[in-house]
Amino acid sequence: MERELHFERAEFDRRVSAVKKEMAKRGIDLLLLAEPANANYLTGYDAYSFYIAQMVLVALDHDEPIWIGRGMDRISATMTTYLAEENIRAFPDAYVQSALSPYAYVAEVVKEIVGEKARIGVEMAGYYYSARAHADLVKALPSVTFIDADLLVNWIRLVKSPAEIALMRQAGQIADAMMQRAIDFIEPGVRECDIAAELYHQMMAGTPQFGGTYSCAPPMLCVGERALTPHGGWTDKRLPDSTIVNLELFGNRHRYQVNLSRTIVVGKPAPEYQKLVDVVVEGLNAGLEAVRPGRTCEEVHAAFATTLAKYGFEKEQRLGYPIGIGYPPAVGEKTASLRKGDKTVLQPGMCFHMMSGLWLKNDGLTITQSFAVTESGCEGLCNIPRKLYVK
Amino acid sequence: MERELHFERAEFDRRVSAVKKEMAKRGIDLLLLAEPANANYLTGYDAYSFYIAQMVLVALDHDEPIWIGRGMDRISATMTTYLAEENIRAFPDAYVQSALSPYAYVAEVVKEIVGEKARIGVEMAGYYYSARAHADLVKALPSVTFIDADLLVNWIRLVKSPAEIALMRQAGQIADAMMQRAIDFIEPGVRECDIAAELYHQMMAGTPQFGGTYSCAPPMLCVGERALTPHGGWTDKRLPDSTIVNLELFGNRHRYQVNLSRTIVVGKPAPEYQKLVDVVVEGLNAGLEAVRPGRTCEEVHAAFATTLAKYGFEKEQRLGYPIGIGYPPAVGEKTASLRKGDKTVLQPGMCFHMMSGLWLKNDGLTITQSFAVTESGCEGLCNIPRKLYVK
Repeated sequence: MERELHFERAEFDRRVSAVKKEMAKRGIDLLLLAEPANANYLTGYDAYSFYIAQMVLVALDHDEPIWIGRGMDRISATMTTYLAEENIRAFPDAYVQSALSPYAYVAEVVKEIVGEKARIGVEMAGYYYSARAHADLVKALPSVTFIDADLLVNWIRLVKSPAEIALMRQAGQIADAMMQRAIDFIEPGVRECDIAAELYHQMMAGTPQFGGTYSCAPPMLCVGERALTPHGGWTDKRLPDSTIVNLELFGNRHRYQVNLSRTIVVGKPAPEYQKLVDVVVEGLNAGLEAVRPGRTCEEVHAAFATTLAKYGFEKEQRLGYPIGIGYPPAVGEKTASLRKGDKTVLQPGMCFHMMSGLWLKNDGLTITQSFAVTESGCEGLCNIPRKLYVK
Repeated sequence: MERELHFERAEFDRRVSAVKKEMAKRGIDLLLLAEPANANYLTGYDAYSFYIAQMVLVALDHDEPIWIGRGMDRISATMTTYLAEENIRAFPDAYVQSALSPYAYVAEVVKEIVGEKARIGVEMAGYYYSARAHADLVKALPSVTFIDADLLVNWIRLVKSPAEIALMRQAGQIADAMMQRAIDFIEPGVRECDIAAELYHQMMAGTPQFGGTYSCAPPMLCVGERALTPHGGWTDKRLPDSTIVNLELFGNRHRYQVNLSRTIVVGKPAPEYQKLVDVVVEGLNAGLEAVRPGRTCEEVHAAFATTLAKYGFEKEQRLGYPIGIGYPPAVGEKTASLRKGDKTVLQPGMCFHMMSGLWLKNDGLTITQSFAVTESGCEGLCNIPRKLYVK
């Protein structure tokens, strides 16, 4: 069976070591990971199977992580991870959406690996760690000490390796191609759903050199009145002669995602709207210029916010979030945020989406930039000009 | 602001009434719903915002449900639900991925609506109800009695109304169009990612009469060796002169999803493979013929399994699951299953995906049928012939 790993084994080993070091520091014997992105990061595992119970275990005293999932997905674990067969464990289909708890199965593996009295870290706020999952584990492992280790791996993921940055650049190229496709395609009379079709086509077709894959969320394609809302969807309606199209697009390469937003105006933008564009772009550029190792997230935010304030504007939401590996429902690593009060210090290899979109009472505008922190500043992960596009 | 509801208000009222009736039966004063599909079912709410804490509350003594979400998504609630403004509640962005818990905000609304000592139902196993969400609510509402009401709404969703079936038919037409596109496009030399591009394009473009939207999972596109795994993804490789392409596609219309799988052989299928096809199609047809109101899920399964057994085959996994409204990560309603031991009685309006895909040691084959139970039998939601396609 051909194995399809996108990183050297040594890179996976470094990741696992970093996690074990943090576990040791916190007195955690075993980490139970439910987040698909964390499983992918530590083992390479990649399949759309996480909607059924699935976990990766990292034990201080066990060399490799252990993957636990559904029987029919065992072969995906063999294909996409470096794990030895003994570290791929699968439960029968009788555990799937039935009265049996797959977490009882997980508990048996836990006992085998670390015994009944270990200190176990779990991702309390993970999308795929439900209240029931936790309750079932607590019941099956009454002598275990549970420790909230939410985001333990996410914080380690925050700084990307050169090999990861290379994939982020490819994801950025796909996002650029998607945006260019939108700019070319959009005109009065096209159906909104056909714009979505073009966007998705480009997301997967990628470039002639490499293809893309599904993103962590659908493209945000908000037209007209919906441009006032950031997370609305498209309709079947045809574009009128004059409207606003707000796009947030996601290029994805081997699960690494780069976000990119632009506004496309159909017809002639109002002069006040163009003024708003100038303000946002000035703020965005000020924010990007503030990025360098040693600065904090809140300092970057301040550079943006100060510029906006000069013109009487304010963005209520945080200015950005880290990007990297992601699975639905969202790419966000849930660690640092570019906002007031966040004192995370920037380091080379960190990647963020500077989400400078502005949703005001009567206007919505989205011009953003994803970037990687470099030794001396930042590198844009997308290259399409930061401006308003008019069709 | 234009409201975009896909059902009559009376239909929403019937849904809410059915839920309240079940709540009363179980002694639940207030239901806290985290599942986006359940929120959509009861209020119409539709936006890709559920990756941040978001809930819909149904109180026995409160006429309308109450939506709670992030400030920036309030406008989506106004646009896509029938709720009065007072029943749309939003928390500030400071609650987003920070030290503040949005569930503390939810708890305040709970106290306002039902007081501090109510009996509250929660969806313990919901994808969007994490262990932390539950712990935060328990902490903020110490005098409340929490009741596991997981799947309470899902069981009500199991029987679809005529208006829902109409959307399911449209979703099925989109799935058919996607499969036809795949059959037309697939040939030696095309990149797998370009097949994905065509599939996605068709999913959104839908038909000339109506468009589609994003599905609950990416299309499953498993080529060659990956045809042995059900949930693998595509690569950048070009199709060789001879291979197997297993497809599971999802048409989606206004969040209603219909699943459709076919196998496309590139080159000449081996005679044993064609024999396997004949067995699966015979089993699938036997299963479909067994469908009628009054029969149980396990009886339908038995009709399929008996046919397969006649030829010495067995499918370990369940034969099917209900389909309807869905959001990522999965469409499954997690209620009935077409499998041994499931005594759910079929009723007109129930919709299932008969997932007769077979993954054997050396072969994978996927020919399936989504259907709605009718007064006298079943109606196929897709119409593409149940056979092997050869290119």
